[in-house]
Amino acid sequence: MARPPAPDQLWSKGLPLDEMLHRFTVGEDPVTDLSLLPYDAEASAAHARMLGETGLLPEAEARALVAQLKLLKEKALKGQIVILPEQEDGHTALEAALTEALGETGKRVHLGRSRNDQVITALRLLMRDQLLALAESAVTLAQTFLNLAAKHEHAPLPGYTHLRRAMPSTWGQWGAAYAEGLIEELEALPGLWQRLDKCPLGAAAGFGVPLPLNRARTAELLAFSRVQTSPIDVMNSRGRHELAILSWLTSAAGTLEKALWDLSLYSTEEFGFVKLPDAFTTGSSIMPQKRNPDVVELARARCRELRGLAQLVSQLAGGLPSSYHRDHQFLKKPYLEALVKGRELLDICAHLLPGIHIQEEACRNACTDDLYAAQEAYRLVAEQGLPFRDAYKSIAAQIQEGRFKPDRSAPAKAHIGSMSAMGLEDTAAALCECEAWIQGRRDHLANATEKLFDWK
Amino acid sequence: MARPPAPDQLWSKGLPLDEMLHRFTVGEDPVTDLSLLPYDAEASAAHARMLGETGLLPEAEARALVAQLKLLKEKALKGQIVILPEQEDGHTALEAALTEALGETGKRVHLGRSRNDQVITALRLLMRDQLLALAESAVTLAQTFLNLAAKHEHAPLPGYTHLRRAMPSTWGQWGAAYAEGLIEELEALPGLWQRLDKCPLGAAAGFGVPLPLNRARTAELLAFSRVQTSPIDVMNSRGRHELAILSWLTSAAGTLEKALWDLSLYSTEEFGFVKLPDAFTTGSSIMPQKRNPDVVELARARCRELRGLAQLVSQLAGGLPSSYHRDHQFLKKPYLEALVKGRELLDICAHLLPGIHIQEEACRNACTDDLYAAQEAYRLVAEQGLPFRDAYKSIAAQIQEGRFKPDRSAPAKAHIGSMSAMGLEDTAAALCECEAWIQGRRDHLANATEKLFDWK
Amino acid sequence: MARPPAPDQLWSKGLPLDEMLHRFTVGEDPVTDLSLLPYDAEASAAHARMLGETGLLPEAEARALVAQLKLLKEKALKGQIVILPEQEDGHTALEAALTEALGETGKRVHLGRSRNDQVITALRLLMRDQLLALAESAVTLAQTFLNLAAKHEHAPLPGYTHLRRAMPSTWGQWGAAYAEGLIEELEALPGLWQRLDKCPLGAAAGFGVPLPLNRARTAELLAFSRVQTSPIDVMNSRGRHELAILSWLTSAAGTLEKALWDLSLYSTEEFGFVKLPDAFTTGSSIMPQKRNPDVVELARARCRELRGLAQLVSQLAGGLPSSYHRDHQFLKKPYLEALVKGRELLDICAHLLPGIHIQEEACRNACTDDLYAAQEAYRLVAEQGLPFRDAYKSIAAQIQEGRFKPDRSAPAKAHIGSMSAMGLEDTAAALCECEAWIQGRRDHLANATEKLFDWK
Amino acid sequence: MARPPAPDQLWSKGLPLDEMLHRFTVGEDPVTDLSLLPYDAEASAAHARMLGETGLLPEAEARALVAQLKLLKEKALKGQIVILPEQEDGHTALEAALTEALGETGKRVHLGRSRNDQVITALRLLMRDQLLALAESAVTLAQTFLNLAAKHEHAPLPGYTHLRRAMPSTWGQWGAAYAEGLIEELEALPGLWQRLDKCPLGAAAGFGVPLPLNRARTAELLAFSRVQTSPIDVMNSRGRHELAILSWLTSAAGTLEKALWDLSLYSTEEFGFVKLPDAFTTGSSIMPQKRNPDVVELARARCRELRGLAQLVSQLAGGLPSSYHRDHQFLKKPYLEALVKGRELLDICAHLLPGIHIQEEACRNACTDDLYAAQEAYRLVAEQGLPFRDAYKSIAAQIQEGRFKPDRSAPAKAHIGSMSAMGLEDTAAALCECEAWIQGRRDHLANATEKLFDWK
Repeated sequence: MARPPAPDQLWSKGLPLDEMLHRFTVGEDPVTDLSLLPYDAEASAAHARMLGETGLLPEAEARALVAQLKLLKEKALKGQIVILPEQEDGHTALEAALTEALGETGKRVHLGRSRNDQVITALRLLMRDQLLALAESAVTLAQTFLNLAAKHEHAPLPGYTHLRRAMPSTWGQWGAAYAEGLIEELEALPGLWQRLDKCPLGAAAGFGVPLPLNRARTAELLAFSRVQTSPIDVMNSRGRHELAILSWLTSAAGTLEKALWDLSLYSTEEFGFVKLPDAFTTGSSIMPQKRNPDVVELARARCRELRGLAQLVSQLAGGLPSSYHRDHQFLKKPYLEALVKGRELLDICAHLLPGIHIQEEACRNACTDDLYAAQEAYRLVAEQGLPFRDAYKSIAAQIQEGRFKPDRSAPAKAHIGSMSAMGLEDTAAALCECEAWIQGRRDHLANATEKLFDWK
Repeated sequence: MARPPAPDQLWSKGLPLDEMLHRFTVGEDPVTDLSLLPYDAEASAAHARMLGETGLLPEAEARALVAQLKLLKEKALKGQIVILPEQEDGHTALEAALTEALGETGKRVHLGRSRNDQVITALRLLMRDQLLALAESAVTLAQTFLNLAAKHEHAPLPGYTHLRRAMPSTWGQWGAAYAEGLIEELEALPGLWQRLDKCPLGAAAGFGVPLPLNRARTAELLAFSRVQTSPIDVMNSRGRHELAILSWLTSAAGTLEKALWDLSLYSTEEFGFVKLPDAFTTGSSIMPQKRNPDVVELARARCRELRGLAQLVSQLAGGLPSSYHRDHQFLKKPYLEALVKGRELLDICAHLLPGIHIQEEACRNACTDDLYAAQEAYRLVAEQGLPFRDAYKSIAAQIQEGRFKPDRSAPAKAHIGSMSAMGLEDTAAALCECEAWIQGRRDHLANATEKLFDWK
Repeated sequence: MARPPAPDQLWSKGLPLDEMLHRFTVGEDPVTDLSLLPYDAEASAAHARMLGETGLLPEAEARALVAQLKLLKEKALKGQIVILPEQEDGHTALEAALTEALGETGKRVHLGRSRNDQVITALRLLMRDQLLALAESAVTLAQTFLNLAAKHEHAPLPGYTHLRRAMPSTWGQWGAAYAEGLIEELEALPGLWQRLDKCPLGAAAGFGVPLPLNRARTAELLAFSRVQTSPIDVMNSRGRHELAILSWLTSAAGTLEKALWDLSLYSTEEFGFVKLPDAFTTGSSIMPQKRNPDVVELARARCRELRGLAQLVSQLAGGLPSSYHRDHQFLKKPYLEALVKGRELLDICAHLLPGIHIQEEACRNACTDDLYAAQEAYRLVAEQGLPFRDAYKSIAAQIQEGRFKPDRSAPAKAHIGSMSAMGLEDTAAALCECEAWIQGRRDHLANATEKLFDWK
Repeated sequence: MARPPAPDQLWSKGLPLDEMLHRFTVGEDPVTDLSLLPYDAEASAAHARMLGETGLLPEAEARALVAQLKLLKEKALKGQIVILPEQEDGHTALEAALTEALGETGKRVHLGRSRNDQVITALRLLMRDQLLALAESAVTLAQTFLNLAAKHEHAPLPGYTHLRRAMPSTWGQWGAAYAEGLIEELEALPGLWQRLDKCPLGAAAGFGVPLPLNRARTAELLAFSRVQTSPIDVMNSRGRHELAILSWLTSAAGTLEKALWDLSLYSTEEFGFVKLPDAFTTGSSIMPQKRNPDVVELARARCRELRGLAQLVSQLAGGLPSSYHRDHQFLKKPYLEALVKGRELLDICAHLLPGIHIQEEACRNACTDDLYAAQEAYRLVAEQGLPFRDAYKSIAAQIQEGRFKPDRSAPAKAHIGSMSAMGLEDTAAALCECEAWIQGRRDHLANATEKLFDWK
């Protein structure tokens, strides 16, 4: 679907065989690989420098390669490298550009590696980078939820179970919940990072090469803390890492989905607890009074879409013997699509939340007396020493007889997490730690990149 | 992923809010809707003509609309209608083209319908058309398998269970199996067609309109045999029909996956039963002797990809209350992608099969004596009246003592489906019936379209 | 999970190897196969009778087998046949029972078949039977929706899009929608039946047997209209047919999910459109006023559970070369579980609906004037010949100025499917045809079974 | 499917309504909850002790509860607590046992908690425990792969890409790859543990209780390092944690699937690289020469089954607003089933591997000269300073002319991960660290449990 064909050319049936085969085997690579190009340039530079440092390549040639790859990385980042259909993929396009600039030397960058470890290394660099980008967006979004919780700390909101009003709650509790949920995802990042923090270069086609590559040095140049030793496992990790990242992303989206469903319901006429910002809704062509919550709905659907994309990647990753199979090619598109769409989701939500208008009066009205039944029963237990069951019966009788008048004030002493002791400072502190971890990774990667290209 | 952005613009984060929201809500519609345009034009023409015939619109205006929509359909088929980003979707682009040509009259086509039933009707027409196209490709492919079975009817091939050689078989049995499997899919088509053969137009936003539309007439003009009466069910069928078609497609692909796995194995050095045509394999950049079966692998992966796309559509279709939600917008892209990719799969396989080179000698050598053990035991049962268990023990003893010399000729009398009585004529006849059914549908649709635009 | 072990014996780790292997390979067969036993007995009887009729087995022995299998089928239906762990599966248990009764003759039933086609045939008979049972439950449920539509034909209900009130609607339209949705599933049955209506017996291990079996006769005795000719395709259809049935079931459940979500929302305090019957709700242990809609929630979750089970079956069915692999064994449990759970869902819903209490006043109050804006605009178009856009602006102005007083009566003439012309009789007639088709299948199967065992 | 009913009672249709509803709402809880009982007893003890320590419950009563819960935990572990159908779930059964022993005091354990946080806490304890159990099995299995690699370090094995022979490799590389793959999973554990290491008790129904519970103390008594502060997030984590664990498990299974597929292929007659141990294969009833690799096939199918179960859990976990819904009940069964089945898979594989018989001669024969083409080309590059492309052409010519005689000895210097420098000691050391981490968690949990019940 990458290139929109005219509808009557949609099908490949009428094509000559060679064009049909070309289209089928090349697939969407010329588009998807655009994202990979800058990472491929960087990985190639590290490989070339290691070859030069170990004497497997004359140092002068290696230096020329590194310098040229620095330029190509910058061009790639600006979208100035085109992948021609006949080049089939980005790796070929990069090599062509390199050879155009450096002649024979350009071809030597491929000494001691194969297309297989080249692709995986570029993907690994992309994964690291984009995981941090996702994490940054998640930090921003968690902060937005925290801000909402702080701003509306005591704004009432009925607490629901089974979609039935159950207990008194607040918008503070609501916002804090999603901040904490996102922080759980952020705190799980180091475990995920651990998977990615291993350099695959040197695995070649999956069994190594008979050359004394210095894999530890390549790893260092690319800011990996270790080598992914086994070449077969390098191949086996194709798909595994994509899925690990998508599991993380769909977990975050699974939490967000709840917030979006809440907003969808709370903004109905029937609930009326919140108004969505105008820019995030649309009018109807035939009903003047109507505002449709399109962005909330699309964001909610996006959460399901991400689950679906993860299942698609899972289908493609599984069911094969070890090592490389061409089947793996199809992994790239849905994986990259999910990353882009996932980050868009986080960013859209971070823009949505600050603009919602909480309808305090409607919320307060919905917190009817009966929501305080349990609280009153606990009060009787505490004050009069009644067993809970007896206190409960006494309250139940009051309700049935219409004489239940609860004390709606919060209890003097409360546990952490309750409406009157939400622990927002602790949550904010935890979020800061997550942010610091991300920043640490970012700095580490940036330093390494600078050093890599600054070969003295 | 539709428009390849420069890698450093991949993320929407830095965008101004309105552009971010525009990008998020419009999504991939400007690309996906290109496929819908011709169908939308046709459905709009039927609606306009019905409005004219019932007097809800002046006949002259209706005629002008029909005539103009005929032209627009032709332009759309040639890819000559562009959907501008600010138009957001194809329906707006079509209306704009109509209004440009006809002024006020162009706007009147929307009387008595809403965007909701308009989209569903265009999708329904597309579904019908593309289901027939898929079916035609499946017929061709089934025929290809049948041809292979006829050509290599008696070419030996070990029959495997548990991936272990088990019984004698033939390439004839192999080809006939896949033909029969595809025919099962084709024979299930009328049940699927029944779902689609209902006109949704008139459902409006999901609750009808207060106008005396002649829904039966619109249905007739669009070659539907019935009206989909309930407007709410029209909305509820969004997703349901997509899934029904993808279930059909993934079922066919599930059968094909087995054939492709077989070919992947049979073409290894270890099995050596078949050579793949050169155009369908690629060489290696470092191993001169190596031919990689790329097309077979990609086609196999495609089968899993289709399952994944169906799961993605399933995620998007489920989990909501009745009626329309903006969530539905995301259904279009993976659905259309699956249709295009599914047909490509069928067509690629139909090109692959005629070119495979069966290695008869290797196949014959692999049909070792022991595969005939069961056949010999049955012969003893038949000829000497031994109970099977005794016959079996006698054969087992012969094998263990190395004196087992089976009669490899086929038994004189055999049951239908066995190597010597494969019933290929019956299978061919069944396939013809499927083809006739498809042709009947095609003719019916073409006649109706002609009549629709030929308003006398 | 079939046999609840003590929690500290949950893991197989401490077990002796042979017991661990036995547990792993036998798996859940001794439980799942209980469902298969009666069908296996019937298929075995047909096979034995065919062997007797063709002279492959002495007629007297064949008659003894048929008579004994009749008894065993009855015992199996009553749950009187136990599958011992050491028997591993139901087929062995059946053969043991047969041999216990008939000695050597008992063993002869296996002449000319293998475990593979035996299992598939029993599964096929079960599929046919249970598909009809599911269809019968779906008919009952569709009738229940129709009854609700007829009873509350004109009871008002706001029509929602985007979960926002959009247009006037009725409970009649609501009920009719789900009836029509279920009828679509029922009308798709013949296409699905076509897949199953082929006798697999005679495929043996997947390549036929060297005996002149009369496969057409076995098919006839088992009420199949055809033989599934290709033995390899018989093996390939393992999983394919399970998925076809589960696609059907999840499609029906996908429609029901919407009805259940509607009921979940409409029964909240906020909507208040319906009260659920007491027997279908539970109270809370701490909130006396609260009724939780447990059954509606579990039924809604069941719809998702069925989708998940279908995905589990899809995982197990795919990813393998042709023919039999032991992997197929795991297909049985989730497939059978889905059938049982699917029918439970249909039956629970059929019990739930007649008991719901529609709160007419709340529904009417929710149908506020603004829902009639589009209707009024159409009225202006019809009565005053205004273009719709102008009519719309006029209404919009009335609303904004607070002077909008719509005529809430239904328009005199309306299209089919609208509130005042729902076409319930046509829907009822279509449902009757579905019921007749099912009854026809039922009668056909019952007649064949009677004839099979009544060997004169 | 938990209780095997007689086949003709499979359907609930004929049941009286109340029994049908009971069966539907109770579902499989009486079976699944058996696993939860010991954890529920422990969590209840911590809750009771905290109540006693804070004065919310008289200390004597709290002590009696803790003592009794210790006994009940032991009984539960031995399978001596029965859940009666009318008790519906394990929590009720536990409370009943407590009340039977202690009268009124038994009921007081429920002060300040609700069924919701009770269930989640028991599940959390179970998750922690079973995650460690899974990890221990994974350690054992990784060790088994390492042993195999060490034992057969230099045994040749062709390296495949695209299932075509590509390069020389060894069984050493094969074993090391899977050890390293499993170690990646083990190293990701701390990130997963971080998610679980938060005490949910005190969340009550999802909004806290108006009592000054000491949540930090309960967390400490249950060996959690923190409180899960937000009560709403506690509810939102239902499903999220299940999925996080299943993602981990399916990732490990995805790697194992490749090993099992390899073994399935390598043990065919065609490859012939390995013989499976007799206990792990079965014979055929009609083919004396045949050994079927049933355990390998079932284990491979188990990997797909786990993916399917994870998708089932994903379906059930998603698609809902925040807080508790009865839908969550269905999560338990597939989640627990996946844990049990996942561990069985790991354990079976750990038993399988030590018994496989590597067929060195066949492996060596399959490592034909052409596999050394790349190695020779690299040698020319290194020794003669040729550019790789020229070296390659020279080798290609030698092969085509049939005069290619490679030097099969390993190169003198090699990179880490290559056949001659596999780095097994580093891998072993990494595995030891994983084991130590697990043991540390185990000790920590055991100490806390001992202290909890040893209330001085």
